[in-house]
Amino acid sequence: MSPRADSRIGLGVLGCGRMGSAHARIIAGLVPEARLVALGDVQVDAAHRLAAELGGPRVHDSAEALAADPEVQAVLVAVSSSRHLDAVRAIAAAGKDILCEKPLALTLPETDAAIAAADAAGVRLQVAFMRRHDPDHRRAKERLASGALGRPIQFGSLQFDMEPPPVAFCDPAISGGIFVDMGIHEFDLARWLMDDEVTEVMAYGSTLSHPELATVGDVDSAVAILRFASGATGTVKLARDTTYGEDVRTEVLATGGSVWLGSLQAGHSAVSGPGSIASDFPDPAIPRFERAYAEQTRAFVRAIAAGEPVSVTGRDSRAALAIAIAADRSMREGRPVTIAEVAGA
Amino acid sequence: MSPRADSRIGLGVLGCGRMGSAHARIIAGLVPEARLVALGDVQVDAAHRLAAELGGPRVHDSAEALAADPEVQAVLVAVSSSRHLDAVRAIAAAGKDILCEKPLALTLPETDAAIAAADAAGVRLQVAFMRRHDPDHRRAKERLASGALGRPIQFGSLQFDMEPPPVAFCDPAISGGIFVDMGIHEFDLARWLMDDEVTEVMAYGSTLSHPELATVGDVDSAVAILRFASGATGTVKLARDTTYGEDVRTEVLATGGSVWLGSLQAGHSAVSGPGSIASDFPDPAIPRFERAYAEQTRAFVRAIAAGEPVSVTGRDSRAALAIAIAADRSMREGRPVTIAEVAGA
Amino acid sequence: MSPRADSRIGLGVLGCGRMGSAHARIIAGLVPEARLVALGDVQVDAAHRLAAELGGPRVHDSAEALAADPEVQAVLVAVSSSRHLDAVRAIAAAGKDILCEKPLALTLPETDAAIAAADAAGVRLQVAFMRRHDPDHRRAKERLASGALGRPIQFGSLQFDMEPPPVAFCDPAISGGIFVDMGIHEFDLARWLMDDEVTEVMAYGSTLSHPELATVGDVDSAVAILRFASGATGTVKLARDTTYGEDVRTEVLATGGSVWLGSLQAGHSAVSGPGSIASDFPDPAIPRFERAYAEQTRAFVRAIAAGEPVSVTGRDSRAALAIAIAADRSMREGRPVTIAEVAGA
Amino acid sequence: MSPRADSRIGLGVLGCGRMGSAHARIIAGLVPEARLVALGDVQVDAAHRLAAELGGPRVHDSAEALAADPEVQAVLVAVSSSRHLDAVRAIAAAGKDILCEKPLALTLPETDAAIAAADAAGVRLQVAFMRRHDPDHRRAKERLASGALGRPIQFGSLQFDMEPPPVAFCDPAISGGIFVDMGIHEFDLARWLMDDEVTEVMAYGSTLSHPELATVGDVDSAVAILRFASGATGTVKLARDTTYGEDVRTEVLATGGSVWLGSLQAGHSAVSGPGSIASDFPDPAIPRFERAYAEQTRAFVRAIAAGEPVSVTGRDSRAALAIAIAADRSMREGRPVTIAEVAGA
Repeated sequence: MSPRADSRIGLGVLGCGRMGSAHARIIAGLVPEARLVALGDVQVDAAHRLAAELGGPRVHDSAEALAADPEVQAVLVAVSSSRHLDAVRAIAAAGKDILCEKPLALTLPETDAAIAAADAAGVRLQVAFMRRHDPDHRRAKERLASGALGRPIQFGSLQFDMEPPPVAFCDPAISGGIFVDMGIHEFDLARWLMDDEVTEVMAYGSTLSHPELATVGDVDSAVAILRFASGATGTVKLARDTTYGEDVRTEVLATGGSVWLGSLQAGHSAVSGPGSIASDFPDPAIPRFERAYAEQTRAFVRAIAAGEPVSVTGRDSRAALAIAIAADRSMREGRPVTIAEVAGA
Repeated sequence: MSPRADSRIGLGVLGCGRMGSAHARIIAGLVPEARLVALGDVQVDAAHRLAAELGGPRVHDSAEALAADPEVQAVLVAVSSSRHLDAVRAIAAAGKDILCEKPLALTLPETDAAIAAADAAGVRLQVAFMRRHDPDHRRAKERLASGALGRPIQFGSLQFDMEPPPVAFCDPAISGGIFVDMGIHEFDLARWLMDDEVTEVMAYGSTLSHPELATVGDVDSAVAILRFASGATGTVKLARDTTYGEDVRTEVLATGGSVWLGSLQAGHSAVSGPGSIASDFPDPAIPRFERAYAEQTRAFVRAIAAGEPVSVTGRDSRAALAIAIAADRSMREGRPVTIAEVAGA
Repeated sequence: MSPRADSRIGLGVLGCGRMGSAHARIIAGLVPEARLVALGDVQVDAAHRLAAELGGPRVHDSAEALAADPEVQAVLVAVSSSRHLDAVRAIAAAGKDILCEKPLALTLPETDAAIAAADAAGVRLQVAFMRRHDPDHRRAKERLASGALGRPIQFGSLQFDMEPPPVAFCDPAISGGIFVDMGIHEFDLARWLMDDEVTEVMAYGSTLSHPELATVGDVDSAVAILRFASGATGTVKLARDTTYGEDVRTEVLATGGSVWLGSLQAGHSAVSGPGSIASDFPDPAIPRFERAYAEQTRAFVRAIAAGEPVSVTGRDSRAALAIAIAADRSMREGRPVTIAEVAGA
Repeated sequence: MSPRADSRIGLGVLGCGRMGSAHARIIAGLVPEARLVALGDVQVDAAHRLAAELGGPRVHDSAEALAADPEVQAVLVAVSSSRHLDAVRAIAAAGKDILCEKPLALTLPETDAAIAAADAAGVRLQVAFMRRHDPDHRRAKERLASGALGRPIQFGSLQFDMEPPPVAFCDPAISGGIFVDMGIHEFDLARWLMDDEVTEVMAYGSTLSHPELATVGDVDSAVAILRFASGATGTVKLARDTTYGEDVRTEVLATGGSVWLGSLQAGHSAVSGPGSIASDFPDPAIPRFERAYAEQTRAFVRAIAAGEPVSVTGRDSRAALAIAIAADRSMREGRPVTIAEVAGA
């Protein structure tokens, strides 16, 4: 037995659906600092199929059982958002560290409860804002944080998906609504890249492309403007589908320079048409953020190995969620909403 | 004497400052359907210098004298915005057609008075939203208007200048404020590209890069969201300066496709740095919209030659101005403002 | 034991250096149709370290031992090119299928011997021209093969590395020289994308950036033009290092359209400088062709599972090698060289 | 009469076809240092039509008459290449400076005769390699000449037209063949950007898209490689038509950096398709090099005004022509051709 094998962190993945499977495969192939030792899902068949593909980690049928596995040192939680709190409580109770998919919960009280559970147990609780671990986003953050670009003055971020999830999933009771479900990434970037807090938001939404979403109370497209504590401003644009691909772009205008993050130019192939050149959008079969997911998990296990705190916390999730909830309320009530009104002072 | 020479429209240019000089040179070189026959400016020295460069058009020292010149069939007005109304009245009184720089006036009552003067005299009054005449913008309009891209659902437009004008010029009493001075182009595009009317706007602004602008009551950066009559939404982003160049971008997401207009990719040269490739921004010495200015004037003289109405009217200027004023009020009062509140029903 | 597990092909990897380790990790994480069951290297320590990281495949100290492992159904060969022939012979003798790194050998006689060994044993012999398996390249191939773009008339391909390998490695006795070592990818693409055979080549080279390469008889930069059997033409450009990143671009001009493949535009982030926007080159830590490597191995194991022949064969390697050898001879002798002269009729 | 008017150089344009008309319009609109005082063409009707459009310069029916016009201080020659020598002789005999379209002549003896005529008369003779005056190309030249990018090691340039001229025009007796007609720009850039001389060239050509060109002895597509005196190398790619627009690109790889010049990314508008974004190619109605033509004429008249020599001379045209002739001979004879063989030592 090699000393190197011993040093790897034993990870369990809770939830073997689309996101959980993706995380498990990434751990197996792209996270050399971790061993995938167990999978958990109430649907054990799905977990067994995934285990067979990935060289045979053990399978458990509950968060409790997974957390109790002695080889499991930490758990990546990828069940649906409404079940995050129960999962976090079970794993924290077993004294294991947690990397939880975003958002930590759909409401602020449940978010607070999850944070409290982790704090009480003294375990790490990292939230999966994976863009923070993407090399391009990190480079942008470093450029802004270095001061070389001066003071940030205007934030802009856009997320356009390729197609909406099933209508039932868009029910705000399940998804939290478009600002929680999609926009939470933009709101987290707003705080992180600007190194500032959002104080007020105003938003509009529409259901012009998928009117059926109105039946569950969601919109398919939305825009918001942000005011930051420093006086800086920002825009957020969301849409459930485009014709051309999954589009994720962020830019920050600062007094001494700008940074751009984006997918518009990222294609590797093109073909000419009459008078034009059609660039293929980045292949959706090669997920834009696969590497970011890997780096996120690596950051998590490295923090554990080093005995250090995690860098993206439950409090970050709470802050982004508060902005999303304020945006949702603004859209519904047609007025600007302060974060203080939603989140408490 | 050739029959072709006779068919050209005799144009006068009122105002021989930066914009007027640019227009006069473009008429001389890029508008074969027109002859530049006269220049007018109260500062006759400036007019004489420009005339000498351009082959000797006559020089007049007032709008009235220019309008009375028998060879002048129509006048391009390029004096400062606060003097537009007087100029329009004088030229309309002489029965000559008018192509007026944007905005037609800084207030809605003055805009109405200018429209009324032209209507009463039965002369054409075209307003210089030159982007509508830019070949790229026309192509985008045609793509949207054709229906091939489905229904427009989200508008976005951005204008970042290279550097702010002198502080005195930014005084809202002179410029109308950032939303009137810069944003009026975006608001005109919003109506034109979306083929829709804006009904409400909410805006934030800041003076983080040029605090001195606060002394005259303007901001150096601003964001706004728009609601359209159809339910569609939009964003507008403005800034007085960037480090990299003059940036003008517009995009429309529709149910069946998107269009982009923009300067980010338009450079023709690049140089490598360590790990990166630096694309030169389009050379500011080659104005982005020079061709649009020429096409605008060509559209104007062609309408005159054909005995047809102009395509971009005083009423278009009024509608865009109303949105700009609503945005300005929203920014100052911290609440959404309907266009009806500003413009009357 | 699940039926799914049984259906996976058991793979061994021979050679645990840089390329072999990369292949092994990709098999573990990105090739669900295969199981990594064994590693082989004469340096068993390296093999053991890699095995520990990848969940414990068995370790062997020779090609013969690896090929004899009963769980090994096929072997990926990633030892140095000069040892390919021996490896292919050993594995073929054991009746196992082979996926061999490019080039199959550095000389045409050794290439023929490797092909003969595989043919005699009746085993598959796939050569690792991974670009053929890259989704972007496949799309370009499909576009050209569909006939929609008419007849290909001009091929162009460029490969600029970030930095040269150690001088010793550039010794043509080891690397085959720049045209074999780097250009073989371009020559393979030339045949594949154009669906044509190269008949003649002329080349120039220089050692202006790394004069030390002259001491071993190689160049650091080279250009070549190609003539195809159809009359079509092409260019190939190679260089050992750039300042900005690893640049790989290919384009084909056809009578009815063009295709582009390239890295110049593929960055996801940018930062402004004075008058310019610097796009970060694709992060070298995220290998451009990682996905292509995975798809290549998947194509190999699927062919085995389906009982079908492989799509990229030893004969493809021979044809590309012949062009590379002709280019090298042309560069050294200063005259055009036909492929027939090098390869036999 | 203003002193400024006096200081402008009086220009005549010889040849009122497509190129001559474009030059005349550019002088009128974009060259403030010059006055267009006369036009010359054996077809006086064409000259009169152009004169009427441009405010009435005088019309002459021969080079001699134009050159004799006392207001004409210098002449821009835009008649067909085969008539350049006669025009240069006539204008030089009248002691007027000359800006001649490229190439100065189709053969080296005629080129030498034109240079000799200008030298004997002591007049300036500038040749219209307009790319040297394009702001982007000038920037690239400055970057290379500054030494900041190290030593140039590989040149590449490409010119793909939108559609071929009429077959009759492609007759090498009239056009000089594809390498003279199109490639002369690339060969001039090769010398200028690399600050080096080409010593040998090898070329291939084909007539796969326009077989009718074979009837007059030309090709529709061609590639060449270049060897420079320094040892550096280069590629040139030419084609008579593309589906997507007029494509002009140049790049230089140097030891410390690279420069790119190109049209691939220069469009200002785009539209989405399924899975792709189609960038409109730069509008051919807005000529890529209009500004370069203006700057070229400005450089010419400024040199006259300052009493200085011109920067792009007949000898530059001779050097580029010699490379083009060598490329043509190489293509026809299937062997590398040295410039010394063509041009004399």
